[in-house]
Amino acid sequence: MAVPAKLNLTDAFTRIPEPWTPRLAAELNGQHVKLARLQGAFIWHHHETEDELFLVIGGRLRMEFRDGAVELGPGELIVVPRGVEHRPVAEAGAEVLLFEPVGTLNTGNVRNERTVEPERL
Amino acid sequence: MAVPAKLNLTDAFTRIPEPWTPRLAAELNGQHVKLARLQGAFIWHHHETEDELFLVIGGRLRMEFRDGAVELGPGELIVVPRGVEHRPVAEAGAEVLLFEPVGTLNTGNVRNERTVEPERL
Repeated sequence: MAVPAKLNLTDAFTRIPEPWTPRLAAELNGQHVKLARLQGAFIWHHHETEDELFLVIGGRLRMEFRDGAVELGPGELIVVPRGVEHRPVAEAGAEVLLFEPVGTLNTGNVRNERTVEPERL
Repeated sequence: MAVPAKLNLTDAFTRIPEPWTPRLAAELNGQHVKLARLQGAFIWHHHETEDELFLVIGGRLRMEFRDGAVELGPGELIVVPRGVEHRPVAEAGAEVLLFEPVGTLNTGNVRNERTVEPERL
């Protein structure tokens, strides 16, 4: 059989020009690995049934919660449990890897003009 | 509620002294995020029902397959599909993040002296 291909994250992010448009990097065990550029503030939302992992690859991410915030830099990760309201903010920009179940909507319980279906890289 | 804690991967790897002893870094959606130091060659094995993601954080990893091999450096990932025989080799050492279902055994279909249950970080 064919040997599986690797993915270089630095190369992959150069193929994502727009912020807040997650791209599918891999699928395994019913989960998606997504890559996203973040820039500025997103919307407050939560995911009813999905936990969500954010791993910062480049830049800085502030994950805001109703009771506080966590600042993340490259090589730092956080898991946002299902049901927990959060708002990702990356004032100077960030490149982020996400792990979450197939079908997870970027805006969670909200559907508005920022809701996008992830495309393949 | 309490704000979720972040994990710094560089710090976390300093708490893993031994190679080939994966530690649990996070759990979400029935999946485990594990961290492992690799050093030298592991054993050939496959996972009957689990796909396995390897993301290289530091060092270099050669993922050997029966039909070829893939060389990975920092910021590169590969998904090994279920059923596919593989052997991780890191001659000069590597620090790796794994994403796989809860219960995945490090030695897959093999149980021997290299089989370990992952402990929490």
